[in-house]
Amino acid sequence: MRLRNIKDAHDIIGKSSYLISNYQEYKGNFKSVFGNDNKIEIEIGMGKGNFIIEKARRNPDINFIGIEKYATVLVSAMKKLEDVNLPNLRIINMDASFIEDVFENEISKVYLNFSDPWPKKKHSDRRLTSKIFLNKYSKIFEGVMTIEMKTDNRNLFEYSLVSLSEFGYTLKEVYLDLYKNDIEDNVQTEYEKKFVSLGMPIYKLYAIHNIDMEK
Amino acid sequence: MRLRNIKDAHDIIGKSSYLISNYQEYKGNFKSVFGNDNKIEIEIGMGKGNFIIEKARRNPDINFIGIEKYATVLVSAMKKLEDVNLPNLRIINMDASFIEDVFENEISKVYLNFSDPWPKKKHSDRRLTSKIFLNKYSKIFEGVMTIEMKTDNRNLFEYSLVSLSEFGYTLKEVYLDLYKNDIEDNVQTEYEKKFVSLGMPIYKLYAIHNIDMEK
Repeated sequence: MRLRNIKDAHDIIGKSSYLISNYQEYKGNFKSVFGNDNKIEIEIGMGKGNFIIEKARRNPDINFIGIEKYATVLVSAMKKLEDVNLPNLRIINMDASFIEDVFENEISKVYLNFSDPWPKKKHSDRRLTSKIFLNKYSKIFEGVMTIEMKTDNRNLFEYSLVSLSEFGYTLKEVYLDLYKNDIEDNVQTEYEKKFVSLGMPIYKLYAIHNIDMEK
Repeated sequence: MRLRNIKDAHDIIGKSSYLISNYQEYKGNFKSVFGNDNKIEIEIGMGKGNFIIEKARRNPDINFIGIEKYATVLVSAMKKLEDVNLPNLRIINMDASFIEDVFENEISKVYLNFSDPWPKKKHSDRRLTSKIFLNKYSKIFEGVMTIEMKTDNRNLFEYSLVSLSEFGYTLKEVYLDLYKNDIEDNVQTEYEKKFVSLGMPIYKLYAIHNIDMEK
């Protein structure tokens, strides 16, 4: 598929009932979007959507919100969703930098899958596991802060282990070559499928933070 | 070199001035062995000694104690030390399980290099980064508890990251392929040299624990 231009992309995704276009109106009240009290989990950088669509399919009692900056990428996700009925899934087209302005004490878990590694040291603050982002997440979580991350990028994973640990997260699971383990319940992303087919190791971590941060 | 029998080994290492044979007498007072107030760092499982001998050579202002269970392995280390004068190095032939009976509030840093991975789950308590061992170390440390670990074993490293994190250690450095980094000050062990020559990744971590544990 050719990358569509941005105006076309916005037109297409705007027509999808999965898109929350007026997301600024729900801060602290996203449960009303779903009309139930179920937990809400978000994926930051959902890309073409394989992961979060499959998560939503497998877990009808959890609400999922996918976040993606690029409308042109979301077009693929919206196409996949055309003939699918998943009342527990919504999508927001936004930059994750603004996440603390959008959610407030209402997210149970954050998924970070194959995020941009921002390899240059001077860009390290842009990594989604930098202290800057971890501070933002602290404001959106409700209860035990939980982060699940997968990546093929060794340097990003090394960085993330240290950054999460220094922030006070406890590592509960670490996989340095995910596919060498029993991963029956693993949900693949598009990138993951590609990297695994190339024989590259996939790194995964699962971390929690018990201390109630000052909001 | 053929593995010598245990009696021969004990005879040989017993003649070395590096061996502390009456180590039970120094609990809480190991600084007197060195006759100075310098920090003491220990390596648990020093094997043939490359690492700790080189560390002692490079750091004359730190005292080092190598610990090794097998006298037959220590013979090689003692041979290397025959014509070397390192007043800041001593060796103890003991099982690390007894470490809390030997030291008390006097160790600055613990090195764990290429420790036995004890791959079976039922033996996981024997891993030198298990909760059982971390509890023992808590009693021997003075000040900030510091652990530096290297291994070629992926499963042991995954386990150790989680175990240290759950115990309250903060990961300050993590390397998932040490030789892909700038490691000018790295000191190789015998195993490490072999594994690197085989192209295997070396894992390394550096962790600290700021909280003063109840002793």
